Amino acid sequence: MANIGFIGLGNMGGPMASNLLKAGHSVTVFDLSEEAVAELSIQGAKAASSVEQVCDNAEFVVSMLPAGKHVRMIYCGENGLINHLNKSTLVIDCSTIDAESAQFVGNELAKAGISFVDAPVSGGVAGAAAGTLTFIVGGTDADFNRANSILTDMGKNIFHAGNIGAGQVAKICNNMLLSILMAGTSEALQMGIDHGLDPKVLSEIMLNSSGRNWTLELYNPCPDVQENVPSTNGYKPGFMVDLMAKDLGLAQQAAQQTNSATPLGAMAKNLYNLMQNQGKGAEDFSAIFKLYSEK
Amino acid sequence: MANIGFIGLGNMGGPMASNLLKAGHSVTVFDLSEEAVAELSIQGAKAASSVEQVCDNAEFVVSMLPAGKHVRMIYCGENGLINHLNKSTLVIDCSTIDAESAQFVGNELAKAGISFVDAPVSGGVAGAAAGTLTFIVGGTDADFNRANSILTDMGKNIFHAGNIGAGQVAKICNNMLLSILMAGTSEALQMGIDHGLDPKVLSEIMLNSSGRNWTLELYNPCPDVQENVPSTNGYKPGFMVDLMAKDLGLAQQAAQQTNSATPLGAMAKNLYNLMQNQGKGAEDFSAIFKLYSEK
Amino acid sequence: MANIGFIGLGNMGGPMASNLLKAGHSVTVFDLSEEAVAELSIQGAKAASSVEQVCDNAEFVVSMLPAGKHVRMIYCGENGLINHLNKSTLVIDCSTIDAESAQFVGNELAKAGISFVDAPVSGGVAGAAAGTLTFIVGGTDADFNRANSILTDMGKNIFHAGNIGAGQVAKICNNMLLSILMAGTSEALQMGIDHGLDPKVLSEIMLNSSGRNWTLELYNPCPDVQENVPSTNGYKPGFMVDLMAKDLGLAQQAAQQTNSATPLGAMAKNLYNLMQNQGKGAEDFSAIFKLYSEK
Amino acid sequence: MANIGFIGLGNMGGPMASNLLKAGHSVTVFDLSEEAVAELSIQGAKAASSVEQVCDNAEFVVSMLPAGKHVRMIYCGENGLINHLNKSTLVIDCSTIDAESAQFVGNELAKAGISFVDAPVSGGVAGAAAGTLTFIVGGTDADFNRANSILTDMGKNIFHAGNIGAGQVAKICNNMLLSILMAGTSEALQMGIDHGLDPKVLSEIMLNSSGRNWTLELYNPCPDVQENVPSTNGYKPGFMVDLMAKDLGLAQQAAQQTNSATPLGAMAKNLYNLMQNQGKGAEDFSAIFKLYSEK
Repeated sequence: MANIGFIGLGNMGGPMASNLLKAGHSVTVFDLSEEAVAELSIQGAKAASSVEQVCDNAEFVVSMLPAGKHVRMIYCGENGLINHLNKSTLVIDCSTIDAESAQFVGNELAKAGISFVDAPVSGGVAGAAAGTLTFIVGGTDADFNRANSILTDMGKNIFHAGNIGAGQVAKICNNMLLSILMAGTSEALQMGIDHGLDPKVLSEIMLNSSGRNWTLELYNPCPDVQENVPSTNGYKPGFMVDLMAKDLGLAQQAAQQTNSATPLGAMAKNLYNLMQNQGKGAEDFSAIFKLYSEK
Repeated sequence: MANIGFIGLGNMGGPMASNLLKAGHSVTVFDLSEEAVAELSIQGAKAASSVEQVCDNAEFVVSMLPAGKHVRMIYCGENGLINHLNKSTLVIDCSTIDAESAQFVGNELAKAGISFVDAPVSGGVAGAAAGTLTFIVGGTDADFNRANSILTDMGKNIFHAGNIGAGQVAKICNNMLLSILMAGTSEALQMGIDHGLDPKVLSEIMLNSSGRNWTLELYNPCPDVQENVPSTNGYKPGFMVDLMAKDLGLAQQAAQQTNSATPLGAMAKNLYNLMQNQGKGAEDFSAIFKLYSEK
Repeated sequence: MANIGFIGLGNMGGPMASNLLKAGHSVTVFDLSEEAVAELSIQGAKAASSVEQVCDNAEFVVSMLPAGKHVRMIYCGENGLINHLNKSTLVIDCSTIDAESAQFVGNELAKAGISFVDAPVSGGVAGAAAGTLTFIVGGTDADFNRANSILTDMGKNIFHAGNIGAGQVAKICNNMLLSILMAGTSEALQMGIDHGLDPKVLSEIMLNSSGRNWTLELYNPCPDVQENVPSTNGYKPGFMVDLMAKDLGLAQQAAQQTNSATPLGAMAKNLYNLMQNQGKGAEDFSAIFKLYSEK
Repeated sequence: MANIGFIGLGNMGGPMASNLLKAGHSVTVFDLSEEAVAELSIQGAKAASSVEQVCDNAEFVVSMLPAGKHVRMIYCGENGLINHLNKSTLVIDCSTIDAESAQFVGNELAKAGISFVDAPVSGGVAGAAAGTLTFIVGGTDADFNRANSILTDMGKNIFHAGNIGAGQVAKICNNMLLSILMAGTSEALQMGIDHGLDPKVLSEIMLNSSGRNWTLELYNPCPDVQENVPSTNGYKPGFMVDLMAKDLGLAQQAAQQTNSATPLGAMAKNLYNLMQNQGKGAEDFSAIFKLYSEK
C-alpha cells in the first residue's frame, strides 16, 4: 500500500480520496475547506496542516483542482510544491484543464527531476463515488504504469493517451465529439418527431443503423425514450450544461493553439453558450434537445 | 413464391432483382436500358415490353428510381401505373426520395385502392449484391408485414418506421446524423493529431468513451487506423460524397417543410457542398477528413 | 393612364392597389375577402365578380399572393388566367415566391404568348402605404421598361435583375445577406458589451470602419442606440422573424437547386428557426439580438 | 514637436515611424533588425543602442509588435521598460493583441504610475505608408487626447473606444464582423451567379438595398465587379487570410473570456482555417469567395 498526498476535496476529489482510503492506502489530505478535510479525517485520512505537508514521504501526490491557473500556482507558483516534492514522488493531476498548463507544469517538474502525469477523469460525481471513473492519462510509459497502480482504485477504465498533456487533449477531443453527438442526435430525433415519427421507433432504427452513437445507446436526449436518463428525469444532471460549455471552451482554446478547423465543435460550443444565455446552465447537457423541441 | 414486377435496374436495382430471382420468385423487369434488361433476362427474369406490363398478375411491384419526380411520373403521371395496377398488388418503392413525393404517390394509390409502402435502402452496391441491405419502411402494419416477406430476400435489417413516408423521413434523419458523426469524428481526430496524438490511440479511447459512434466502430475516416475501410483505401467509395450531399439536400428539404431547426445538419450539408466544389464528389464521404487534415 | 387588374388585396396588396388608383389608373380588383374588395371600391376601384374578370381589357395584371403554389394555381391551374389573358397584357407578379415557380409560370405564359415579369418587393407595409417600395424585377428589357411605368407609382427603387425569375433570386440573395448582417452585427455588439464597451460607441466605430453595413446605418439591433428603430421600440415589427424565416427558407430552397454552398445563410436560417421555437416569430427580425444578449 | 521612442520597425512600424519623422518629431527607434534601424536613421531617426534607451526623455513611447507575449515581455518582463520609463511618458501600444494582455500591461504600468493606451490600427501597409491608418484607442479621456496629438500624424480616423483594452476589443469586434460581411457577401453573390445572375447587377442591387455593406461598397470579393480591388487583381493582398485568421482567433479568445455566443464569428473563423488548410493563407481575405465559386 502507498503513501499518497491528496489536494482538492471537492465533489469529485472527496469521494476519490475516500476510495483510496478504502483500498488501504495511507492518505494525507489538504483542502481550503476545513469541513472537507474533517470529513475525510473521520474516514481515516491524515489532515495536512499546510499544502506542503502532503509532499512528506509521498509516493504519489494526486490533485483535483478547478482550472489551469490553480494547478500552475500550486505546483509552480511562489512557494510552489516544486520546491517541496521528493524526486521519487509521482504527481498525478486529475484536474480537467487546458493542455498548455498541463504541459507547462509537467515540464517544470521534469526540469526539477519530478515525474508528472495529467490524468483528467470522466464519469461525474456518481462515478467518483462508485469508483468507476474513466482516467485518460498523459505521460511516459513508466509513469503511466506507476499511476495505473493507484488509479485502478478510483476508476474502471484507465487509458494511456500519449505524452504529458495528451490526457487533456484526448479528453477534450472526446467531449467535443460528445457534444456533437448529443446536438446532432437531438436534431435528428426532433426532425423525425416534427414529421410524425415516434421517437422510440426512430431511436431504435438509428441505433441499429449508421447513426448509432453513445447518446442513443445510453443517454437519449428525448424524454421517455429511455429510463433512468436525465431527459426522462426533468434533465436533472448528470453532466451540466455549464461543465460541457467549460470543456468546449478548452477545446476551442486547443483548436486555436494549432489552427485546427472545428466547425461543428465551434457550433456546438455556441449552442451551449445560447443555452447558458437562456439560464439553463445547471440542467443536464442533454437538455440541448429542448433547444429544438420547445415550440 | 411470388410474382414480382421490378422497375429500375441500375447499380442498386440490378443486384436487388437478381437476389429476388435467386430466392425463387418469378420476376418481370423493366428498364430504359436494354442492356440492363438483357443482363437480368439471362438470370431468368422476364423482360417486360412496356412498363405497364410489370403490373400483369403482379403480387408486388418494386421500384428503384433516382428521384421523386420519376416516382411521381411512373405511378401518377399521364399513363401512370395507377391505371394499370391490380388492387391486390403491393407497391414497394425502394427509391430514396423526398418524403412529400412518397406521401403524394402513396395517397394517390390509396385513393385508387392500391397499397403502397416506401422502403428506402441503405448498404450500397456491395450490400445490394450480398443481399445484406437495410430497408426502412413506411406504411401500415399489414402492408409492412407483406412487404417484409420479400424484402428479406434482398436485405438483412428491415425496420418499420411508421406510416407512408416515414421510411423516407427515418432514412434521412439517420443519414443526416451519420454525416454529423463523420464530420465531428474527423474534427476530433485531426485536432488530436495536430496536438501530437496517435490517431489509433485516440480512436481507441473515444471508441471506449462517450464519443463512441458508428464511424469509429466501422468506418474510421483517418487513413490507416482501420483496415478495409475507404479511408485506408484512398477514399474509394463506399458511399460517395455526391450521394451524401443528395441525402443532406433531402434532409434540409424535410426540415424546411416542418420549420425544424437543424444547425449541425445544415452545416454538414454545406461542408459536403464545399467538397463538391473542390471536385471531390466521387470520393467516399469519409474523405471529409481531408477537409481538416490537408495542410 | 392604364387599365390594371389587381389580384390579392392583403396587408401589402391593398395599399399598393390604392396607390395605383391615386396615380389615376383604372383598377379592377379581386380578392377572396369581400371586405378588402369593398375597401378598395370606396377608393374608386372596380370590383371584379370573378378572378377572370380582372383580365378584361387589362394592359397590366398585378398579383400579390402568399406563396408559389397560389401563383401557379391562379395563372396555370385548372381554369387558370392563362386561358383568359390577352396577348397584349403584361403580367406583373409582385409576390415573394420560389424562383422555380416564377420561372414555371413565366414560361407557361410565354408559350401562350403572354408577357410576364416577377417583381418581388421589399419595404414592408409602411413602404406599401407610402409608395416607397423597392421592386426587384426579372424579365426582358422591354417588359421591364413597360412594368417600370406603373411600378414607379407604387415604389421608389425599381431594379432590373435579369431574366424571368431573377427578381426572386436577387431578392432572396439580398435578404439572406441581410439576415447575416443582422446576426453578425448583433454578435459583434454583444461581444463588445460583454467586455464593457458602450454599444453606441462601438456602433459608431464599426459604422465608420470596415464593419459598416445597412443594419448599423439604419436598423441597429441593440436597444437605445438609434431612435425610431424596432429595437428601441420593444422589437415591434418592422419585418417579422416569421417573414425572415420564410425568405431564408426560399433561399435554402434556391441553394438546394444549384448545390450552392451557403454555410452562413444556413446558420442564420437556423438561428431564426430557434427564435420561432422560442415563440418570437411575431417580433421584429432584429430581435435576434436577444438571442445573444439575454442572460 | 515631441520626443518619441519607437519600438518595432516592421512592415507597419517602419512607415509609421517614418511619418512621425516627416511631421517633425524627434524619434528614437529600436528594432532587432539592424537594417530596419539603419533605414530609419537615414530618414533622420536616432538609433537606440538598447531598447531601454528609447525611454530616455521620451514624451511618448510607441510600440508595434506581433503578439501579446512580446508586449508583455518588453514592458513587464525581466528588465522590462516598466523599470526605465519616466512617469511623464505616455505608452501607446499599436500592436493588435489579445485584450487580456493589453489590460495586464496597462494595469502594471498604472501601478508604476505610467500612463498607457492600447491603439491597434487598421488600414494595412498601404495605409501605414500614406498616413491614413485608423486607430482604435483604449484608455482614459486625458490619455486619449494626449495620444491623439501624435496619432493624427500617422492616421486619419482616431476612435476612442473606452478604457484600457477597449481598443483591442473594438478592433476584433469590427474585424469579426468584417469577416462575416465578406463571407456572407460571397455566398450571396455566388448563389446569384449559380442562378444565372450577373454579379455586377446583383452587387448593384444589394448595394442599394438592405444587403449594403462595406465589402460591396469598397472591396467586392467577386473578380471584375470593381476595379482596383484584390479580387480583380488575382487576390493579391490587401489583407491576408492569415492575418484575418489571427484576428478571428483573438475574437474567439475574447468570446471565450466572457462566454459570449458568436456562432457566425466562429463559423467565419473556421472557414478561414479551411482556407489556410488549402494553402491560401497568403492570399487576400476576399479570396474566401473562391471557397464558394471554384467548381
